[in-house]
Amino acid sequence: MAYFDAASAAPLHPVARQALLASLDEGWADPARLYREGRRARLLLDAAREAVAEAVGCRADEVVFTPSGTRAVHAGVSGVLAGRRRTGRHLIVSAVEHSSVLHSAEAHEAAGGEVTTVPVDRTAAVDPASYAAALRPDTALACLQSANHEVGTVQPVAEVAEVCRAAGVPLLVDAAQSLAWGPVRGGWSVLAGSAHKWGGPSGVGLLVVRKGVRFAPQGPVDERESGRAPGFENIPAIVAAAASLRAVRAEADREAARLRELTERIRAGVPRLVPDVEVVGDPERRLPGVVTFSCLYVDGEALLHELDREGFSVSSGSSCTSSTLTPSHVLKAMGVLSEGNVRVSLPPGTAEEDVERFLAVLPGAVAGVREKLGAPAPAAPAVVGAGERVVDALGKRCPIPVIELAKVIGDVPVGGTVRVLSDDEAARLDIPAWCEMRGQEYLGEEPAEKGTAYLVRRVS
Amino acid sequence: MAYFDAASAAPLHPVARQALLASLDEGWADPARLYREGRRARLLLDAAREAVAEAVGCRADEVVFTPSGTRAVHAGVSGVLAGRRRTGRHLIVSAVEHSSVLHSAEAHEAAGGEVTTVPVDRTAAVDPASYAAALRPDTALACLQSANHEVGTVQPVAEVAEVCRAAGVPLLVDAAQSLAWGPVRGGWSVLAGSAHKWGGPSGVGLLVVRKGVRFAPQGPVDERESGRAPGFENIPAIVAAAASLRAVRAEADREAARLRELTERIRAGVPRLVPDVEVVGDPERRLPGVVTFSCLYVDGEALLHELDREGFSVSSGSSCTSSTLTPSHVLKAMGVLSEGNVRVSLPPGTAEEDVERFLAVLPGAVAGVREKLGAPAPAAPAVVGAGERVVDALGKRCPIPVIELAKVIGDVPVGGTVRVLSDDEAARLDIPAWCEMRGQEYLGEEPAEKGTAYLVRRVS
Repeated sequence: MAYFDAASAAPLHPVARQALLASLDEGWADPARLYREGRRARLLLDAAREAVAEAVGCRADEVVFTPSGTRAVHAGVSGVLAGRRRTGRHLIVSAVEHSSVLHSAEAHEAAGGEVTTVPVDRTAAVDPASYAAALRPDTALACLQSANHEVGTVQPVAEVAEVCRAAGVPLLVDAAQSLAWGPVRGGWSVLAGSAHKWGGPSGVGLLVVRKGVRFAPQGPVDERESGRAPGFENIPAIVAAAASLRAVRAEADREAARLRELTERIRAGVPRLVPDVEVVGDPERRLPGVVTFSCLYVDGEALLHELDREGFSVSSGSSCTSSTLTPSHVLKAMGVLSEGNVRVSLPPGTAEEDVERFLAVLPGAVAGVREKLGAPAPAAPAVVGAGERVVDALGKRCPIPVIELAKVIGDVPVGGTVRVLSDDEAARLDIPAWCEMRGQEYLGEEPAEKGTAYLVRRVS
Repeated sequence: MAYFDAASAAPLHPVARQALLASLDEGWADPARLYREGRRARLLLDAAREAVAEAVGCRADEVVFTPSGTRAVHAGVSGVLAGRRRTGRHLIVSAVEHSSVLHSAEAHEAAGGEVTTVPVDRTAAVDPASYAAALRPDTALACLQSANHEVGTVQPVAEVAEVCRAAGVPLLVDAAQSLAWGPVRGGWSVLAGSAHKWGGPSGVGLLVVRKGVRFAPQGPVDERESGRAPGFENIPAIVAAAASLRAVRAEADREAARLRELTERIRAGVPRLVPDVEVVGDPERRLPGVVTFSCLYVDGEALLHELDREGFSVSSGSSCTSSTLTPSHVLKAMGVLSEGNVRVSLPPGTAEEDVERFLAVLPGAVAGVREKLGAPAPAAPAVVGAGERVVDALGKRCPIPVIELAKVIGDVPVGGTVRVLSDDEAARLDIPAWCEMRGQEYLGEEPAEKGTAYLVRRVS
């Protein structure tokens, strides 16, 4: 059994468990009350706030505990947008933010606000110059993650914060993926985090709002947590969150080096062991424990099931593993292959043997899925044939359209074209990505009688 | 040590603790994932939902877990108001709802909606006829608590639900105080609850929305909990909440009878043992463990400190114990005395000896506070004096204005008046309440050069 999905939720850290147990008997009462049980709860809450502030690098009275990272982002975005409404209603987000940020942006747009989405390069990184170009006199807020949750790429937060600061615009940093490894550097204004990403319990998010940032909490008023997070505080969980953050930080440097070495083995090993694979994300500026790759001609859900049967828990940004049947917005924004996508995110303490076993098992798992789907052999010899071929993949889902394309590309002469008809959303991303991987020329798409026609010219 | 503030937060039930511990290792993963840890988390979540549905008396797919009772109320009120916006923007609440409901109503008003507040009688009970009179063609939602959190009075929910149903208006019931004792009867449409009120952990609220109720969740979209409660589910806490609800229900009838007998002792004992006390709330239709009384000429905060020193943790609706320096809105709506207010709410398992000791300690604690404040003796003899007296209590806080009034009432002849000048918000409630308790005539208030003048005629 190897759980390789720490970027979704990390297993509870032993220190979190101990702190939770210890505070169940001390931290259940209302910290706003004056009697002894209330005072005891208040002491625990205050101490947890101090500990978190130290780990984040802020003042204790800037820290608000929310019920989740998602709620921290929602409250942070809406609070700053409302607080700075007189400046304007323009919001900037990157294209690869967590859904909680993008959904906040959608809600802002639906309420009449304006949103600029900053693009990313093929590694998922933003360019500070793009933020500079997006800033306007009516920009109320800019958002940028500290590191990407799907591919692990670390963003240039300090540089973007500097650009924003120069324009007088606060920057909200979604630090959910990186807080375990260290504080976020640079002059950010608002920060969001989530305890269960660092080995803390579920039920605790962090919202940090720097003094001086105009902030107007939305929704019904409530006096708890400086009026910024309504509802009774979950003190045992907050205590556990604070204690475990301190604990993971104490181990962070050593563990980061170890996990970086393990993910480097996967980054290097997968393309060597599995044909037709694209490893995505920045090879250097990345989270220690995350590595993501996509496998041509593979159904992501089938591959996840194969790996689960072998005892590996991983996640995927493939369209077939999402409820909406569209590929992950991160892979889409990067313009990389989404089919057969696998994200491996190692929790602290991952054993070397488990990573080695993963590398031993993966080639067979991928080959098995490809065989069932009738995928082309990795090195199919080129056959000269007719000048143009039409592939009707209508009604067929990822990865079938790409498999059909790969099967016929050898049948057209060099210079000839293949026209793939598809109504699967993933094809829009995966056919160009296949062309790039295979050295063929992607000519573009055009509407067809049914679905869309994707045109590919054989180059080699 | 006796904790008598279960209506704020109940100590963790042993079953909740066990269930929480047991599920920490099984319930931390993302229940939306397909691998084994995710499936295990999903199973726990589904089972908890079934158990809660059975206890509430609804379908499992009508239950949504929120991070707190407050968040359940906020989401429930805003969701129905938005879902029924085409019907209208009129909201009905009772005057004695929990602050989460009243703050939701304020937010609705601030956004341009209309709110009707249904009054209560001196016991805090609403009259179903008042709801019938408040209903309008544009009423989108009515709200009523199952039982009052400050004085324990049980509301006629089934009757009000019937009135609402006849008008086609959904009724939202805040059942936070009563869910431990049994399901809410009658045809309610939406229900909110809070696990830490029944001995479950902090961090879990319930929102139940009956099928067929138009509901449009507000805020950014999120796919968890049917799109009605954003953020990662806190599954160990949810499991503990469900298990403890089942456990307290198994003991509910026996424990309700026992606590009812203990609170009856307090209801009967306090007026016998302490002079100048008003026991408030309905003597029959009430929660088993709650009893509330107010003591003339007593500073609520000082009394709470005295009781805390004696080992009793209770709460108060007096103005001096609130951050806003206004008396509890519940006591205000009932029109009863607010000074020296004490709410005793016994948790299940309260020992008889602790209640007896409370009754033994209370008279001395009250007498001590009164002595420090220089309160009049309980039976001060009437002295005939001048025809009108002015008491300047400007700048003095509860209970001083009433103490000053009581000191001079004997100085005016029967038929004479006392004019109390006060700028303390509690005086508006407590001077009329004192008149009622003392058999004197309250003539009303009028603006004074500074503060307000309260006019009292000596009758006896």
